This record gives sequence, C-alpha cells and structure tokens, in this order.
Amino acid sequence: MMNIKINDSFWQRYIKLIREEMVPYQWNVLHDQADIIIDKERDDEGIPSEKSNAIENFKIAAGQKEGNHYGWLFQDSDVYKWLESAANTYAIKPDEKLKLMMAEVVSLIEDTQEEDGYISTYYQIEAPELKFKRLFESHELYCGGHLIEAAVAHYKATGDERLIDVSKKLVHCIQESFGPEEGKIHGADGHQEIELALMHLYELTNEHEYLDLSEWFLEIRGQDPDFYQKQLSENKKMNLDQGRVPTINTVYHQAHKPLLEQEEAVGHAVRLVYMAAAMADVAYYNKNEKMLNAAKRIWKNIVEKRLYITGGIGSTVHGEAFTFDYDLPNDTMYCETCASIGLMFFARAMMKNEMDVEYAEVMERALYNTVISGMAIDGKHFFYVNPLEVDPKASKQDPGKSHAKPTRPSWFGCACCPPNLARTITSLDRYIASTSSDALFVHLYMDMEGTYQLDKQTIQLKQLTKMPYEGEIDLSVSQVKHPFSLQLRIPGWAANASVRLNDSEVDVEQVNGYILLSIESDTAVSLLFDMPVMEWSSHPLVKENKGKVAIQRGPFVYCLEEEDNGDQLHSFELTETPQPEQITDEVLGKFVSLKGAAKKIIVDESWSNVLYKANENKYVTESKTLTFIPYHLWANRSVGEMRVWVDRK
Amino acid sequence: MMNIKINDSFWQRYIKLIREEMVPYQWNVLHDQADIIIDKERDDEGIPSEKSNAIENFKIAAGQKEGNHYGWLFQDSDVYKWLESAANTYAIKPDEKLKLMMAEVVSLIEDTQEEDGYISTYYQIEAPELKFKRLFESHELYCGGHLIEAAVAHYKATGDERLIDVSKKLVHCIQESFGPEEGKIHGADGHQEIELALMHLYELTNEHEYLDLSEWFLEIRGQDPDFYQKQLSENKKMNLDQGRVPTINTVYHQAHKPLLEQEEAVGHAVRLVYMAAAMADVAYYNKNEKMLNAAKRIWKNIVEKRLYITGGIGSTVHGEAFTFDYDLPNDTMYCETCASIGLMFFARAMMKNEMDVEYAEVMERALYNTVISGMAIDGKHFFYVNPLEVDPKASKQDPGKSHAKPTRPSWFGCACCPPNLARTITSLDRYIASTSSDALFVHLYMDMEGTYQLDKQTIQLKQLTKMPYEGEIDLSVSQVKHPFSLQLRIPGWAANASVRLNDSEVDVEQVNGYILLSIESDTAVSLLFDMPVMEWSSHPLVKENKGKVAIQRGPFVYCLEEEDNGDQLHSFELTETPQPEQITDEVLGKFVSLKGAAKKIIVDESWSNVLYKANENKYVTESKTLTFIPYHLWANRSVGEMRVWVDRK
Repeated sequence: MMNIKINDSFWQRYIKLIREEMVPYQWNVLHDQADIIIDKERDDEGIPSEKSNAIENFKIAAGQKEGNHYGWLFQDSDVYKWLESAANTYAIKPDEKLKLMMAEVVSLIEDTQEEDGYISTYYQIEAPELKFKRLFESHELYCGGHLIEAAVAHYKATGDERLIDVSKKLVHCIQESFGPEEGKIHGADGHQEIELALMHLYELTNEHEYLDLSEWFLEIRGQDPDFYQKQLSENKKMNLDQGRVPTINTVYHQAHKPLLEQEEAVGHAVRLVYMAAAMADVAYYNKNEKMLNAAKRIWKNIVEKRLYITGGIGSTVHGEAFTFDYDLPNDTMYCETCASIGLMFFARAMMKNEMDVEYAEVMERALYNTVISGMAIDGKHFFYVNPLEVDPKASKQDPGKSHAKPTRPSWFGCACCPPNLARTITSLDRYIASTSSDALFVHLYMDMEGTYQLDKQTIQLKQLTKMPYEGEIDLSVSQVKHPFSLQLRIPGWAANASVRLNDSEVDVEQVNGYILLSIESDTAVSLLFDMPVMEWSSHPLVKENKGKVAIQRGPFVYCLEEEDNGDQLHSFELTETPQPEQITDEVLGKFVSLKGAAKKIIVDESWSNVLYKANENKYVTESKTLTFIPYHLWANRSVGEMRVWVDRK
Repeated sequence: MMNIKINDSFWQRYIKLIREEMVPYQWNVLHDQADIIIDKERDDEGIPSEKSNAIENFKIAAGQKEGNHYGWLFQDSDVYKWLESAANTYAIKPDEKLKLMMAEVVSLIEDTQEEDGYISTYYQIEAPELKFKRLFESHELYCGGHLIEAAVAHYKATGDERLIDVSKKLVHCIQESFGPEEGKIHGADGHQEIELALMHLYELTNEHEYLDLSEWFLEIRGQDPDFYQKQLSENKKMNLDQGRVPTINTVYHQAHKPLLEQEEAVGHAVRLVYMAAAMADVAYYNKNEKMLNAAKRIWKNIVEKRLYITGGIGSTVHGEAFTFDYDLPNDTMYCETCASIGLMFFARAMMKNEMDVEYAEVMERALYNTVISGMAIDGKHFFYVNPLEVDPKASKQDPGKSHAKPTRPSWFGCACCPPNLARTITSLDRYIASTSSDALFVHLYMDMEGTYQLDKQTIQLKQLTKMPYEGEIDLSVSQVKHPFSLQLRIPGWAANASVRLNDSEVDVEQVNGYILLSIESDTAVSLLFDMPVMEWSSHPLVKENKGKVAIQRGPFVYCLEEEDNGDQLHSFELTETPQPEQITDEVLGKFVSLKGAAKKIIVDESWSNVLYKANENKYVTESKTLTFIPYHLWANRSVGEMRVWVDRK
C-alpha cells in the first residue's frame, strides 16, 4: 500500500483533531508547557503526576541540563509515540513547523544515545550500573521499541535516515547484550514491544537479523520462569540494588512458561497483545507454524472467552490484566485504550497468515468503539480505562472503581494511551485493506483512495461511501493490467448485501466472510447493505450480562447516558428494539442515535426508609423512551451514568 | 441480669466449641505453638503473617526477653480479646486449667505495664519516643480499650481485681496525656474502642470520670480534621519520625468533622460501629440528646441504606469501609465479622435509649448470619470477610476479589475476628433480654434461665423453646413480687403469633414490635408463631439485586452452595418459594434446608466457541430443584460457589 488518502468525513474529523489539537498539545505536555492538571489513572499515592518531564529527561540524559529523572521508567516512550504520531501526521499533510518540532526531538534523541547505542533516560541518569539488569520492570527495550517505531514512521514521512541510524545502533547494542551466546542475557524485556518494533524495522529494511532477533526475544520469554527473579538476586548479591526484592508475578509478563506452551490470554493485557501481534508477524515471515498456532490459541481464547462487546480487553485493574474465561465485569474492568490498539495490531498481523473475516471484525470492533472512545471530541481529553458501566458516585466513593472515570482527564501520570491513540489513528491507512500476491482484500469501508501493490501490478483503489452510518459503498479499482481477485468484507453487522459490477447486479461467492470478485480490468463496484439494529446477548457464563442486551448498529456499539435518559440506568428494561434517528448535536456533531421503548422501575413512597421488603417482588414501573448513542461518544457532554448492557424484557 | 445460663442446643454447640476448641487453640496461636498456616486477609505483600508473636511481644516489652516486636501495631488486642473470651468461658463453666492460663496472661500484662500506666508493646519496644504521637494508626487506646474490656470480664468471672487496677492505672495515664487542658492532646485514637471500653468500666465501677472521658473522646473526634496530620508534621519537625508523611484519609477514621455533624455511616466499618455504640451508651448515661440524635442518624443511614440482608456492613475492601447509599455489591464487599459484632453492640446500646423492635431485628440478623458465619463448625477456621456471593475462580484469579475467600483460613495475620467472635458468643447472655425500671424485654428466644433486676425486684426468666427452627416458646417468669410489664418481641419473620398465659389464650397489645403483658405474679407464657419462608426484595436502587430475592426463614438468611446445586449458580432462576425440610447432615449437623423449583440456563452446543449472539436472547433452560442452606453454614463441606441473592422468575 502506498499514498493512501483518507477523505472520509468521520475519520477526517479525528485526523484533523490529532493534527491541530493533539500533536501540538502533546508537544506542550511533553515540554511541561501545557496548563493542565495531570490526573492519576487510579487512586494511588505512588503514581507520579506532578508533571511530564519527558523532554527534560532527555536533556538531562544528554548532558544538556542538570537534574534528576522524573516520571515512570517508561516516560521516554511518550516522546517516541508523540514523534511517531507527528510523523504520521506529517505524512498525511506536510507542514514546516511540525517538521522543525520533529527535528528538535530527533536531534535530542541523537544526543542522548550513548556511544554504544544504549538509550534509556532513567537508567542513564539514575542507575547506569543497572542497565539491562532489572528487565522485569525496566522498560528499556519497550522504550527502544517505540524509538524504532518512531524512526520507521519518521523515515517514511520525511526520508530522513537519522533515526534509522539511531535504531540500528540501538539494535546493535541489544545484540551485544542479549542472545543465546554464553555471557549474554537470556531473557526478554518485562514489557513486550521490541519484538513488534523489530518487525517494522525488518519490513522497512528487509534485513533478516531484525526478524531473527524478534523471534529470539519471543522464544526466550518464559524459558526460565525464574529469569527476572534471578536478575534481582544477582543485583542484590553484587550490591547493585538496595531495598527489598519484590516477588515477581511472571504471569503478568507472560513469562511463566514458554510462549509456545501458553494456551490462554493471561497477564497484563497490553503486553499480551503486543506480544501476540509480534508472534503473528514472525510466524508469517519466518513460516514458523508452531508460533502461528500459539498465536491462534491466544486469539481464540480472547475472542471466544475474554473479549468485551466494545472490543475492550483486560477484566481487572489489578495488573491491568486478563482474569479467567467469561469473567467480563462491566464496572471494574480495565479495557485500556492501548490494549484495544494492541488488539488491532494483533488482528492485522493474523490476517497476513490467513484471511478470515473474524480478524477484521474484531479489529473494527476495537477501532470504532474502545479505541476512539479513548479520545474526547475536543481532542484534548483521554480515557485510559474504557468501562461499560459507570456510576460517578462509585468512581468517587468506591476506591475499587476509582479507575473507571466518568470523564476523560487531560493527561495521565502514565501517559501511554493519548500518544498511542494519535499514532494509531494517523496510521489508519494500514487497516483499510491488505493484499496477497494476486488479491486485494478490503476490510474497512470509508472514503479513501490509494494504491496497493500485488505481485504483478499496482492497483488503484478508491472508495466513496456513506459510511459509517449507511451501507452504500462505491468502490473502483483502476490501473488493472492483469486479472486479480478483489475480496470485499461483508461485515457481520450488515444485512441484505448486494453487489453491482459496472452497474449490473451480480451473484457473488462468499469465502471466509469476503465476497470474491474476479477483476480483469478497471471496474466500478457498488456494495449495498442494510444496517439493522442488533441486540447482542452474552454467553450464559458471562454472569454480569444475564438478562441484558448490548445494542449495535453498523460498526458502533451503543450505550445509554444519563444526559439523555436520567440516572439509575440499571432500573430500565428495554421492551423493543430501538430504532435509528439522524442527529445533529451541538457538541457531538452528526451521528445516528437509537430510540426504543422501555419500562423504568420507580422508587415510590413505599420505599422511603425501607431497604428490603419481604414477599413483594413486584415493582412499580413507568413507560419511558431510551435514547442510545454510539459508545465512543460518551462522556462528552456532562458527568453522569453510562451503561452498555441494558436489561431486556 | 445475672447468672444467665444458656441451655439452648443451637448455641451450646458454639459455646462448647469456643470452650473446647477456640480458647485453647487461640492460646496456642498467641504463643506460636499451633501448627497452622497463617493466612493473609487479602493479597498484600505487606501483611505480617509469619507468626502471631502476640505473647512474645508482651514478654519482650516486659523485659523478660530480648527481641523485636512482630505483627500489627494492634497485635496486643489479640491477647486481650482472648482473655476476655477465656473469662467469659470461665464464667459459664469454671475450669482450673483455664484459670491458670488466664493468670499467666494477667501477670504478664501487669509486668508489661509501665510505672505511669502506659502499655502498648509496639511502642514500648520499638518507638517509646512516639507514644501517643501517631494516633491515626497507633492503636494504643484501641488496645487499651480491649485491655479494659478483658479486665471487666476477668473480674466478673473470677473476682480478681488485678486487671481492674491495671485498667485504672492506664486510664490515669490517658487522663494525664489527653484532655481539654492546655498541653494535653486534643484528639482521639484512630481506631475507636477506648470509648466503648470506658463505658464498661463505668458500668462496673459507677465512677463518673470514665463516662466523662468516653464522652470527651467522642466529642473531640473531628473537631480539628487536621489533628492527625499535624501530629505527623510535628514528629517530622522534631525529628522523631523518618520517612514520608502519609496523607491521612480522615473519613476512614470518622474524624473528618465533629460527630454531632456526621449524617452518614462512612469510613472503616468497625471503627464506625464501635464509635456509634459508645455514642449510644454515653447518650443514655449522660442524657446527651444531641449525641443520641447523632447516633440515630447513623443508625438510620446504616439500616435504611447500607446494610446487607445478612447483617453485614462495609461495601468495599478498600479501607474495609462504607461507600454510598444503596451500594451493596455482593462479591466485592467486606462485611467483616468484627463489623457485624460491632453492629450488635450498637443495636444493644440503642435499645437502652429507646425500645423499638428494629434494634433487636438488626442485632439478630447480624448474630445469626454474618457473625456466626465467621466461624467454621470445627471452631478452628474463621472468616474475616463474609461475602454474599463467591466464585472460587474469581477469589483466585481476580485480585479485586482475593479478600472474598471461598474457605475459612486457620488464622490471620490481622487476627481481630476470631477472638472477637469468641468473646461475643460467650457473652450472648447480654443480648437475650434487657430491662427498664419496671419492664423486662425479651429480644431473643433460646433455651435459657437467669435473673433480671428491675427497680423493685429480681425476676427469674426461663425459656424452653424449639428455636431457632420452630416457633414454640415456653417462657416463665417467677419470683414476681410486684406488677411489671413483660414485653416479648414478635420477630419480623414470624407469622400468626399467639400467646397463652397460664394456659389461656389472650388477646395482646403490640407496641413497637413487642407484645405487652402485664404480669402480677409468677406466670407461664406460651408464645407460638409460624416461620414462613420469606422472599426478600431489595430497594430499586440496589442495582446488584435487581430481579433477585434473598430467602429467609426464622432468623436465618439462606444461601445456595455449589455442593448442593452444582456450579454456575448465577444461571438459576427460582420459580417457586422454597419449602423447609429437616436435615441431619454428617458435617453440618441438624438444620432446616429449603428446597424449591428453578430453571437453569444450559450452555448448549450452540455456545461452543461463541461469546456473543446477535438477535437471540432466548436461552435453553432445564428444570432443577434448588437446595438452600442457612448462610452461616456455608463453606463447611467443599470449596465451591455460593450466593445469597438468586434470580426470581
């Protein structure tokens, strides 16, 4: 794929917000020049939240300033992710000012990198003696991975090779320290990311060593479950580390056993999907079938047993982690924005190995719901946690729900999500379609145009659509010189799909959820489908959703907000399938809402001063109309209750 | 009341267990001689759980041994509560061996107390310079209170005044340090208890200074919400304390504003009810109407908005605390055994001020459910947390539920509950009946006999009952010399109550839930009632219980266990009121179970590999019979799911 332009009005709004608001805003935050209150992602005295200090850390590490490191061990990655999103933004619309901002950061990174290629401001400033010696938490290779991803994006956007050189030097440094040879470290970073980044560098350079190093990091993980603990004991023995040696929960790091033996999605959700995405990539390029099967097992476990209807993952705040099959609480879960972004990576990487519509379905579910829910429509406020049910009273007065916030804060002490969102949405072009040697697969429908490289030819693809609110898509393929297969996804939420080729209705074959069109010359394709309102029910073992439905139309999962429906959302029971209505809202803009009849239990006089009643399980109800809005739009108007799963008569 | 003997077979089993198992067992634990694994009350590396060390701490503080303090700051209270339960046990059945055990502890306490009356092993051993200077967490007066309570019980049981002398010396020490005078400390202990204990000492000695000191501690609390924080700053300034000064959440300590201004039950649940019980006592003896009104407001808030059907309180593990009105989650709550014990104290103290059946109802609800649920039927395993819904998978794999254990551990690092249970059940005689100048109120029905002091006479009361499983009660009052009012509680769970006086049916007047009988001479009273099975529904704002019922018969709330019903208890829907059945179980003994028809949702083939289904909210069900057992008996047979609230068709 090359030169893909997204013209879609739904997505342009986000891309414009990122260019005009998020990128300059995050620049200010990283430079501690934004006048904001930094929030904690949960109630915890230990969370650093006074300032970002991210750029300052680099200046100190580079010797340009005096001072101490501030913030998380992985604060550097905020800068790298900013740079990646800035580069993506620049690629979409070049801009001299942005180029200068990027250049400043690139130079600072060059200055910070040490002679031998090492770079990690925390360890450079505070604990050089512990470099690569506390891998369970150090995030050195995690940050390094983000540096490499930024480098690739920056090079693609500007042609400037400086950060590619920095990346290669860093990889060399890593190769000197890690590997199967005696004397080297036989373990991987506590937070997966380098594996994924090395694949990007490999895809750019075609240099096999990067692919092999990624594979090695994947394969060494969990080989010795005591690896991290042994590092700490060794540090203690060598007097490198004071203080109590913590007990490491290796499941959190997916390092409790070798990857190829892991059957379930466990531990920290972001780590898991970053790792799994790299597994799928490595499996593809190295034809590693065992790795592919291991990735597939993890995929199946997520999708069949541990995935929220919104595309969220991570059922608990404790370790931001998976828990167990069918455990999907709606108000204490984590559903981190970054985790759903990682799930998109994983889905996209799996597609390279096999084309099954499930990958695109999950990718889309994450993208249109939990991922973009991470960002307010002003582009300046962000969710880290994306709950399916919120009561502001509980967020405030039950510390067990303090992480499920009813409003998006401006920034976080741990600011992984905002820049991750920015880099993902500015690289949306990667997710629209993919290719094999002689086929072009279209996964997502939106106004766009661009070229795709097949083995024998470059195909120009253009979409003109009424998406995401109506199922009318005009596709054209041009520059066709050889026959090829055009495969169009029929979304799981679509009904009555029909296809016209150059204005003639055709019968079409569907394989794995894609309709197959044999194309021999430039062709205009019309794809039409309905978007019926869907009512989802959960597996009987998902106890939180018993008797409840979640509403979806098109790619959007819907929710109820107090703003439209009053409070006590749990006391409603939907009595009919809600129906669509076009809305133009002052704050939310244009979208489709859904309205449907419901019964609401009333707190009548008989309940004053009474908490329980015996032998009276009839409640007084009143008729109400429920208004649903797309989930990603919640928490943009007022502070109030929200819920996705609603009781159904 | 005097010389009350409980002959009831239901309660004798508990009293015998405490005498024969718990008291000697806890003695061994406190002496670190029991071969057990000490459990943590929740997953937290910081919880001391290697040993008890409680007696050892005294020996070290007394200078009999060398060493350091181990365990919590309030470890001493385990010893005092043991002593109190031992004394109560001795009062029920004197025993030379027990007397010697008590004497050893009493001597050790005497040896530990310092010249000026101070006693608190942690501060004596580790930080004498910080005595009374870290009151937010020091538990010095909390432990002191338990010492006084033990002293009163020990004196009543043995006539030995040694610990009363220790207590008076301690109170003198407290009076020297605390009080309104300049130079003294103007604040109270972070954990209420001394207030309650001083009332016991006052009731024993009639010395008004104890009542006044209790009132002063109640009234000083929250007058300066920064009091605790100022102590810490002062310590820092004086170089008495190293390390970071924590931020104190004064709501946790009910010290955020003066007591008389507090409208709701907030903060740590045990602290709250201990405080409220003392408030009610002080209000009664000092005719402090404002204090009484404040206590009543707290009572109303608990009973009308924050009380579990099982008599549990504390909706969150975070701070073991209350949260907000109608927030009563069943699987993440705390419902500490000690909190329900404190709720009994509070109810009993409120009764002194006014006779309303609600106090006895709540007291009984706590006693027969959450309180005795705290103890296994072997007398050697204990619950700290008493959940209303448990899934062992969640207890193990969701750290947010690690505190809601599916089995009772042998002991805890923080061992407040087991000895609290022992002292409460061995003082059950206090809760059966109470008196006013010319009335005897009977609150609880069980086989017993004893005398009660009215203004003009001593009345002998005797009960012969089929309680707690059948509503047949033969009461007799004898030694009647003057007319008096006998008031018998008609429990909220009773139906068709009838009364016979000396074998003749009589019409009776009911006032505030008690039937009034004017007694002029020795009389035999027969009280008969049915115990219909009740189905409780919750207030519409208790979202967790929507569509669900809790089952009760007599004083017992019932629950479902996996042992009787299989797993996935959430997938049942009760379709009829369950009916009683007499059971004699090998492990559980004799009790009444309840059985009723239900539908169970089946996980059929159509759900294999599917997490959500669109537009299909019908589930396949099968007919099942549900078996309920009394809540307090749960977790005595096997590890499995349990739930109190069950879906109702």
